[in-house]
Amino acid sequence: MHILTLQCPDQPGIVASISTALLEFGANILENAQYDDPATNTFCMRTRFESPMEDDDEIAGKLALRARSLHADLRVRREDRQPRALILVSKYDHCLIDLIYRWNVGELGADIALVVSNHGDLGDTVAHYGIEFAHLPVTTETKAEAEEALLDLVDRHRIDIVVLARYMQILSGGLCAQLAGRAINIHHSFLPGFKGARPYHQAWQRGVKVIGATAHYVTADLDEGPIIDQDVARVWHSHTPEQLAIIGRDIERVVLSRAVKAHAEGRVFLLGDRTAVFA
Amino acid sequence: MHILTLQCPDQPGIVASISTALLEFGANILENAQYDDPATNTFCMRTRFESPMEDDDEIAGKLALRARSLHADLRVRREDRQPRALILVSKYDHCLIDLIYRWNVGELGADIALVVSNHGDLGDTVAHYGIEFAHLPVTTETKAEAEEALLDLVDRHRIDIVVLARYMQILSGGLCAQLAGRAINIHHSFLPGFKGARPYHQAWQRGVKVIGATAHYVTADLDEGPIIDQDVARVWHSHTPEQLAIIGRDIERVVLSRAVKAHAEGRVFLLGDRTAVFA
Amino acid sequence: MHILTLQCPDQPGIVASISTALLEFGANILENAQYDDPATNTFCMRTRFESPMEDDDEIAGKLALRARSLHADLRVRREDRQPRALILVSKYDHCLIDLIYRWNVGELGADIALVVSNHGDLGDTVAHYGIEFAHLPVTTETKAEAEEALLDLVDRHRIDIVVLARYMQILSGGLCAQLAGRAINIHHSFLPGFKGARPYHQAWQRGVKVIGATAHYVTADLDEGPIIDQDVARVWHSHTPEQLAIIGRDIERVVLSRAVKAHAEGRVFLLGDRTAVFA
Amino acid sequence: MHILTLQCPDQPGIVASISTALLEFGANILENAQYDDPATNTFCMRTRFESPMEDDDEIAGKLALRARSLHADLRVRREDRQPRALILVSKYDHCLIDLIYRWNVGELGADIALVVSNHGDLGDTVAHYGIEFAHLPVTTETKAEAEEALLDLVDRHRIDIVVLARYMQILSGGLCAQLAGRAINIHHSFLPGFKGARPYHQAWQRGVKVIGATAHYVTADLDEGPIIDQDVARVWHSHTPEQLAIIGRDIERVVLSRAVKAHAEGRVFLLGDRTAVFA
Repeated sequence: MHILTLQCPDQPGIVASISTALLEFGANILENAQYDDPATNTFCMRTRFESPMEDDDEIAGKLALRARSLHADLRVRREDRQPRALILVSKYDHCLIDLIYRWNVGELGADIALVVSNHGDLGDTVAHYGIEFAHLPVTTETKAEAEEALLDLVDRHRIDIVVLARYMQILSGGLCAQLAGRAINIHHSFLPGFKGARPYHQAWQRGVKVIGATAHYVTADLDEGPIIDQDVARVWHSHTPEQLAIIGRDIERVVLSRAVKAHAEGRVFLLGDRTAVFA
Repeated sequence: MHILTLQCPDQPGIVASISTALLEFGANILENAQYDDPATNTFCMRTRFESPMEDDDEIAGKLALRARSLHADLRVRREDRQPRALILVSKYDHCLIDLIYRWNVGELGADIALVVSNHGDLGDTVAHYGIEFAHLPVTTETKAEAEEALLDLVDRHRIDIVVLARYMQILSGGLCAQLAGRAINIHHSFLPGFKGARPYHQAWQRGVKVIGATAHYVTADLDEGPIIDQDVARVWHSHTPEQLAIIGRDIERVVLSRAVKAHAEGRVFLLGDRTAVFA
Repeated sequence: MHILTLQCPDQPGIVASISTALLEFGANILENAQYDDPATNTFCMRTRFESPMEDDDEIAGKLALRARSLHADLRVRREDRQPRALILVSKYDHCLIDLIYRWNVGELGADIALVVSNHGDLGDTVAHYGIEFAHLPVTTETKAEAEEALLDLVDRHRIDIVVLARYMQILSGGLCAQLAGRAINIHHSFLPGFKGARPYHQAWQRGVKVIGATAHYVTADLDEGPIIDQDVARVWHSHTPEQLAIIGRDIERVVLSRAVKAHAEGRVFLLGDRTAVFA
Repeated sequence: MHILTLQCPDQPGIVASISTALLEFGANILENAQYDDPATNTFCMRTRFESPMEDDDEIAGKLALRARSLHADLRVRREDRQPRALILVSKYDHCLIDLIYRWNVGELGADIALVVSNHGDLGDTVAHYGIEFAHLPVTTETKAEAEEALLDLVDRHRIDIVVLARYMQILSGGLCAQLAGRAINIHHSFLPGFKGARPYHQAWQRGVKVIGATAHYVTADLDEGPIIDQDVARVWHSHTPEQLAIIGRDIERVVLSRAVKAHAEGRVFLLGDRTAVFA
């Protein structure tokens, strides 16, 4: 089984062109989703097909001419070659453990290659699951150096997705640019409400009746990146900020893993500051 | 703008065939959704396109050969020619008034042609909105006759959808068969829980913490038809059956109107006892 | 049946004092809820009881001494004497019609005494339900005068609650102060996100995956008043701002009516910028 | 801090009696919730208070006379003496791991004293967290014996709550009776829909659009016990039964832990086949 994703300026004949090409080498489409975004005039397509030809590059080669004529970003990958993820954590472990659990039972959609932390605390937990762990301390002085080291790990481990699973460090603009479109953060509020620090305390003070969490691509503008997924839970006046944090953890876990899975399965398309996410 | 829906046995080349045909007469696809159901080996497709050729029959003619060779049920309609709905009600008016409101502001997706009731009570309300009302009393003795009269109204008004908006009568097997796939009922429970009469009382007695409503196609098996949409709301132990009914009304309204809209826009595909509903 | 609400500085013995007093004149408590807010050191209590003594003032008299010694704001009213509501609207009618529907079937908890609008458009709709309608045009020049007239209506009609049901005018600071704690607004976003104008367009631009609505007390700070209720709905990338508005209307209706009902039934307590709302 | 729970036939003066008694020995009420169930004529009360007298038995002694005259089941416990839980599992580990995680960070409300399984598979996982594990195989022949052994463990470990965390064995009527009101099961459907085996497959076949999970007290009638909590998630036609199970796991985890916490904190009251659960 293969996953094809395509993004290009809208124009007539895209579906016909690609589906005909797939048919020509004997592929059979099992899932197909398109979206034509009027705001950016961009066409997005995701196709899942079985093919007698198994090699990704060979298939991509068959489609290259058409992709070029459509000015399309076209990608093909075997469904069983899952993207490789690097997870960044600090001390909070609930998202990390959840991601590892889902990876372990095969429902994450991505392969966890490495966990990196600015603290050593979670090393044992990670080791227990047989995942490599790198301790990369960050201070104001060493930040540039640490980010270099991180990028080096990204390269050496051929990382496709960087997941900030409650990583309490702000990435530099340069690093954000380098990881554009492949770094996903979970923010523990229903953005755009309560950006920045201590969102559950902010939520408590504003007296909201529903709290939430947001998974988004990382950009240089803090908590402003394109949103991939969000969810919420009802809360009561009697909840303290600490209890909001407990309830919120359940939302964070689910939203982050859904976002990672959607991205890993090629369901997320960037449309400027927005995303299209195919169900 | 046009809506094409197609349902046929799965086989390679469907998307290529239809999208190429559309391209040939200059149509441009704006939305396209497919689903290939493994359980029934059925392929479903919905395409929204703009076309220089405006006439539905002419377009259908251009696609007829391909449809035949795919053994497909293929339909095309201009988006601005909304399906015509007949609404059946008894005395409860909350769903009726909601459907009328949405129709009035143009968000229902269907055109309300006629309201039929076994009681006369809602005649004035319906008249206030300038919609035709027919009072069709039903007793055990007159049931067959009344159903004949109803079918006659369906024909004369060229009705596409019959909506049972809390209609308190059970349709005969014969009528269900005649309206198969084009009659939608709202049941005031989260099916398959609490079929039959007084579901809010049943829910209260079972002590559920969440209640719901279900919109489904009408079949001869009561409350067993293919489900189109469902939704729920949280309730508390202090709620009486009457309060459950009040909360439930809000769910019924939203679920029924969503189901009617989805059906009217060609988003619902029947797959045996199940449905596929495109977002 | 009677409703007692009490708010006072926290101190030992409040429950014992009030429940003993109720017992003394033969009242029987059917519902009782308390909340002790640590942040403001405020105690809130709502009690529903049946009493052989029927007169509100007489009951309040029996409790007056104890209330005074607790420095409490204590109120008693017969449950069947519903608060009187004035509804402010402009041209959008979905919340208005919903409030009227619920009032009509007896589920609103408040009595709609009057509808006031800066436009004449909805006069006929309101008249159809036998509710008094006042057309009070507002221009920059006449704003002060119009607000005077509004306050006059509030007084003359002995209004307890002013409901801004998508009223497109900003109230002056003076009017907000006069109506403090008894004016409820519906804002069509999930506050604190998307304050101010065109929140559905703002939501679309930010690319959120969930939209919402917020009912709050009106204060001089626009969209910053204490929140009474909120709710949300999931949306998709394919939704236009107009479709968000359609989906949002269903949330607005439900959230506003829930807030009005909670306030009318004495379930809402103001705690600085927050509220406690008893289920 | 102490938790008092009381359940008795409804009668005037209960709140006054108990709150006065608490005041007499200097207790200060911080939370108080009551519910008077009209269907069973039962009064339920939960009070959280701080007290200069710290010993549970001493406090209970002070209240004993009043409790007796009210024919009340009255219990008092120090909030920091959490109920002791025994968790029953088979091979599915998602609920177990979730319960352990919450216990580990102190948010479960109960103390996990022991995990018992009819399989040995999860022994290592449980040991990793320093929790005692007992392997208690069950066959048709040894069932009676195994249940004896289980009851013995319940006694020896002074267990307050038995949690069936996807335990794939049906308890005998005798064991159900012994554990009445203190054994909580998670069923992976939205009861009363889809009782019995393979509920996600049943749900898929019925084509529901929302799936759920239910935490309930264990009774001899399978999946018929009083419901403590339920929750749901929206699903799509494209989801296979296996994908429903993945989505369902997230609901199961949250619903079971919420039910255990509510029970452990004394928030759940049994009212025949229903429960009252205080927020």
